[in-house]
Amino acid sequence: MPPTLLLLSSLAPAYAQYVRAALPELTIVSTTDPTEAQTLGASCILALGEPNLLRQVIPHLPALRWVQSTWAGVEPLLDPALRRDYVLTNARGVFGELMTEYVLTYLLAHERQVFQRHAAQQAGRWAAIPPGTLRGKRLGLLGVGSIGSHLAHALKPLGLTIYGYTRASEDCAAIDRYFHPPDRLAFAAELNYLVSVVPNTSATHRLVDDALLTALPAGAVFINVGRGGAVDATALIHALTTGHLACAILDVFEQEPLPPDHLFWRTPNLHITAHTAAPSLPSAVAAVFVENYRRWARGEALHYQVDFERGY
Amino acid sequence: MPPTLLLLSSLAPAYAQYVRAALPELTIVSTTDPTEAQTLGASCILALGEPNLLRQVIPHLPALRWVQSTWAGVEPLLDPALRRDYVLTNARGVFGELMTEYVLTYLLAHERQVFQRHAAQQAGRWAAIPPGTLRGKRLGLLGVGSIGSHLAHALKPLGLTIYGYTRASEDCAAIDRYFHPPDRLAFAAELNYLVSVVPNTSATHRLVDDALLTALPAGAVFINVGRGGAVDATALIHALTTGHLACAILDVFEQEPLPPDHLFWRTPNLHITAHTAAPSLPSAVAAVFVENYRRWARGEALHYQVDFERGY
Repeated sequence: MPPTLLLLSSLAPAYAQYVRAALPELTIVSTTDPTEAQTLGASCILALGEPNLLRQVIPHLPALRWVQSTWAGVEPLLDPALRRDYVLTNARGVFGELMTEYVLTYLLAHERQVFQRHAAQQAGRWAAIPPGTLRGKRLGLLGVGSIGSHLAHALKPLGLTIYGYTRASEDCAAIDRYFHPPDRLAFAAELNYLVSVVPNTSATHRLVDDALLTALPAGAVFINVGRGGAVDATALIHALTTGHLACAILDVFEQEPLPPDHLFWRTPNLHITAHTAAPSLPSAVAAVFVENYRRWARGEALHYQVDFERGY
Repeated sequence: MPPTLLLLSSLAPAYAQYVRAALPELTIVSTTDPTEAQTLGASCILALGEPNLLRQVIPHLPALRWVQSTWAGVEPLLDPALRRDYVLTNARGVFGELMTEYVLTYLLAHERQVFQRHAAQQAGRWAAIPPGTLRGKRLGLLGVGSIGSHLAHALKPLGLTIYGYTRASEDCAAIDRYFHPPDRLAFAAELNYLVSVVPNTSATHRLVDDALLTALPAGAVFINVGRGGAVDATALIHALTTGHLACAILDVFEQEPLPPDHLFWRTPNLHITAHTAAPSLPSAVAAVFVENYRRWARGEALHYQVDFERGY
């Protein structure tokens, strides 16, 4: 008999629709409410949903054997106080295109001075300032996993040189030059753009610190689409306030929504987007679950298994 | 003996440097001043420069046989009152990359709502609005010459479907579907984006009129990087004021700089950039002249000859 799936997501109805259509044999219990999920899911051995909701329920699911996260980041489930006696898989391979559009939007907005031109227009000023170009610029990726690799392949044809910073791996062909932990500052020294796509783990915590930001050339731009914990906020505010960085674009923050009294709201040349770079689309993420479920049913190893110790 | 070149450009020193380095055998007289050029150029048979400056000098150059424009558009030299007893070549093949970056900047700024997000941030508001995507959208090119073709090839990998509107030609492989004059409104009917790259000629004058704008689906976006004469300003202002178009981005205008009392300055959702989409870079345009000069010296036909009647 096929197992029962607990579906716990703010978009539970949409996920239920996609999963039911693909896997009619599966029994699904579906809710948007973690408290309700504790009762509903008591006998479930599979769960699909948002890590921040699932963390409230997992201690109450004795039969649980596999959790598919709808997010790429699974920090809420990595708390050492939580159980780890199940297989955790995250969503991968579905964020690359949206992430690329986000990063490209702000690379071009910077080169083309869209905010300055907009302000000139508001003032009724004909601003014939020459544009910049991406061609010939250097972009450094902090993290070259599924998303970083997609970014590298998509941005390279625009004439950018791409540097990659990883723990050890060097398996993306679109990276022009790799750097590893001993060479963190050398990695930064020649970049026009630094783009962080790293998850929040003990190895990435405050990786973008004062030393790294100071090592960037004057006028560089920092973009964070990974996780907020990778950035030392005080160091970033200093780099922007002194004008060392031309600007920063942040999609992710240690606390979301960003608290109203956070200094980021008043930091010059800081663009805040509200964790919208690459939303988890139920159609795409449900397909990741469905494919993984078929592997599970055949007794095969699942895709995108998270190493609880490594954190991704 | 090699001929003498009149170099008349606001960037004359830069052009002189590039041309001298490549063609040391050429005698160059160089100025930024059209009045001075009338005397300096009296015996020149070649000229290189901006069409708006050259038009003031050409009647005074009896020996003139070839003019290389530093611009793509050559309207100032097409006045029927001016002589046409010389070969006119324009600059082509050097604007595609910058034009692509410009168009892509504003396509993405629209999908990613960068101005709305910026305004939300100014108001201290966490704006978790979902982004749009270019993937699956339809973009129509009004004109598929050198620039249109470059745009089509560069934008297609981002998941856009590209329609092309031309007088008759169908020679760009990146165009998904071609339309010609009898089908102008059918061309517009399914577009998310309409991008005009046409020059200002009798055939393109007011091509973007009330009928074409009305034929666009509600919420479409219009971008003009060709010439201002292709657009009926009153019709465009109406389409924006009523909200039929989501927005328009104009780089070119019938009069530049755009006069301070022009209604465009007060039209909602209209973005004005000051003819900066793809500046003529002396390094790139000088190379076009140098290659053409070598063809001239060998007695070969020149690249990029303008048909005075057709206008490009």
